Amino acid sequence: MSKTVQMSESDFLEKIRRRAVASDRVPIPIGDDLAGVRVGHELIMLGSDQVADGVHFDFREHSPRQIARKAVLRNFSDCAAMACLPHAMTATLLLPRGVGSGLASALTEAMDEVGRAFDCPLVGGDTGSWDGGLVIGVSVVGRCEGVGPVLRGGARAGDRIYVSGPLGGSILGRHMEPVPRIALARALAGRGLVHAMIDLSDGLSRDLPRICTASGVGATIDAACVPIHEDVDRLLAMKLGKGEGHVSRTGAEVRLGHALDDGEDYELLIVGREIEDGEMKADLGLIEVGWVEAESGVRLMRGGRVEEMESRGWEHGL
Amino acid sequence: MSKTVQMSESDFLEKIRRRAVASDRVPIPIGDDLAGVRVGHELIMLGSDQVADGVHFDFREHSPRQIARKAVLRNFSDCAAMACLPHAMTATLLLPRGVGSGLASALTEAMDEVGRAFDCPLVGGDTGSWDGGLVIGVSVVGRCEGVGPVLRGGARAGDRIYVSGPLGGSILGRHMEPVPRIALARALAGRGLVHAMIDLSDGLSRDLPRICTASGVGATIDAACVPIHEDVDRLLAMKLGKGEGHVSRTGAEVRLGHALDDGEDYELLIVGREIEDGEMKADLGLIEVGWVEAESGVRLMRGGRVEEMESRGWEHGL
Repeated sequence: MSKTVQMSESDFLEKIRRRAVASDRVPIPIGDDLAGVRVGHELIMLGSDQVADGVHFDFREHSPRQIARKAVLRNFSDCAAMACLPHAMTATLLLPRGVGSGLASALTEAMDEVGRAFDCPLVGGDTGSWDGGLVIGVSVVGRCEGVGPVLRGGARAGDRIYVSGPLGGSILGRHMEPVPRIALARALAGRGLVHAMIDLSDGLSRDLPRICTASGVGATIDAACVPIHEDVDRLLAMKLGKGEGHVSRTGAEVRLGHALDDGEDYELLIVGREIEDGEMKADLGLIEVGWVEAESGVRLMRGGRVEEMESRGWEHGL
Repeated sequence: MSKTVQMSESDFLEKIRRRAVASDRVPIPIGDDLAGVRVGHELIMLGSDQVADGVHFDFREHSPRQIARKAVLRNFSDCAAMACLPHAMTATLLLPRGVGSGLASALTEAMDEVGRAFDCPLVGGDTGSWDGGLVIGVSVVGRCEGVGPVLRGGARAGDRIYVSGPLGGSILGRHMEPVPRIALARALAGRGLVHAMIDLSDGLSRDLPRICTASGVGATIDAACVPIHEDVDRLLAMKLGKGEGHVSRTGAEVRLGHALDDGEDYELLIVGREIEDGEMKADLGLIEVGWVEAESGVRLMRGGRVEEMESRGWEHGL
């Protein structure tokens, strides 16, 4: 989770995004989790995501099956963020030279398996080998079938902000097995309950500003409401055991920091109208964490004080 | 162009292909240059291809623009092989850490530019960085608009075999700038002149067997008809200058070998009924190189003798 002072990936993508203009062919251009492209009478959703050794997985530690599943599930999580259904996928495999075809078979079989589980067949791609590390790219085509797509830009002042599960500490293992919240996203979007959505791949402190920027609004998060995953406590216990505890910050602050900044939770960040308790909020497992305001910027309310929230989530430096 | 004794990429893909079964959703499964996927009432064509430093380009030698163009044009050449039109694409960029955003911008701009030239907007993707070399994956969506798709499996005994241009020696530079023969492919397919097609990425000696296997036929190539690119002579002159000439084979044999085996020509290999000379064969620039037979196997006719043609084209070992 390196931080760099160079131009970041999000700055770079922001530059690209500013140039993107919706057109008849591409009604949803670069800037959301997937793009929307019209083919004849159909709107298809398109996206690509990659995993690389040493960045998204560790080839010495993780099995081919784990690696392949992560490569695919990240893309399905993007489908969840748009409330669309995965429909078909292609993959590029770049293998370390000399590992043999066993790795290619294991990766392909695992991708095939997870594709079938989500009714999204692997239909093609490319396999090659080189002197570098393992890289897998996956491209997904999604379909809407009358629900969604939900964009990042639909948040309005007065909306509530929800997350679909506890956050933080995914590095302990959850980051390898994203659970795409497709059924939840479809249920929310189908009932008109969601105005904007994103999947929490880079951390709430980095992904919420993306919704706010796209929607032209601001937001406040109530620190007391942020659900902290038990992995955070396990992680802190491990760090303390190694003498890496942060003595300069209180335990609560450190725990909250992990929940807001760690990333790779792949839970949904959902912005929509207030959902009444009797209206299936509990059924859906949604946790309300804040609200949207007209004033731009993202703020954190903690112990009665409100401060600017720093974007310390996972940042891919270039 | 390394040859390995391990399971090759084509063996591996063959294994996958045997498992692939056409379905309502995927009427054209893995096994062609692109897969055909039905979304609602539309058939879309899907494929992914990648380029990696040290395999498909040399980062020290080639400019970002050259590299990005090759990454995209290889995919458009796959569209040509199916006689479909590129419609939209996504890209994954994996950058060497620390090179800064200039590289990402240069690559993206070049992909955008070549996409516009082919009416195929770049609509999304993913950018990351790592400690390894540059890798670009491109996924393309194609549309048919009433023409094609042309598959590998349609060749019939009695068909003629054509190529769209001279072959061999692409390593001198042409391999970086594939010219997707989309207009030619659409013209042929639109007139019902083509039964099977593939783009010559791995060399005629390797790509023709793919058509024969998919079609359940065999073929004979007339060595005297194979158009040899002038790059082959330039390449041989360079090798001779370095003392690398093949003294054990005649000049004609060596030249033919380059035309059949070098790969990365990205010309079309077209199988179809005999095209009369007055029927635009010359206009189309087609060069007849052989014919299809019921007997399986691929043969080379040379100086009145017929021998089995070895598949010595570019092979990606795993």
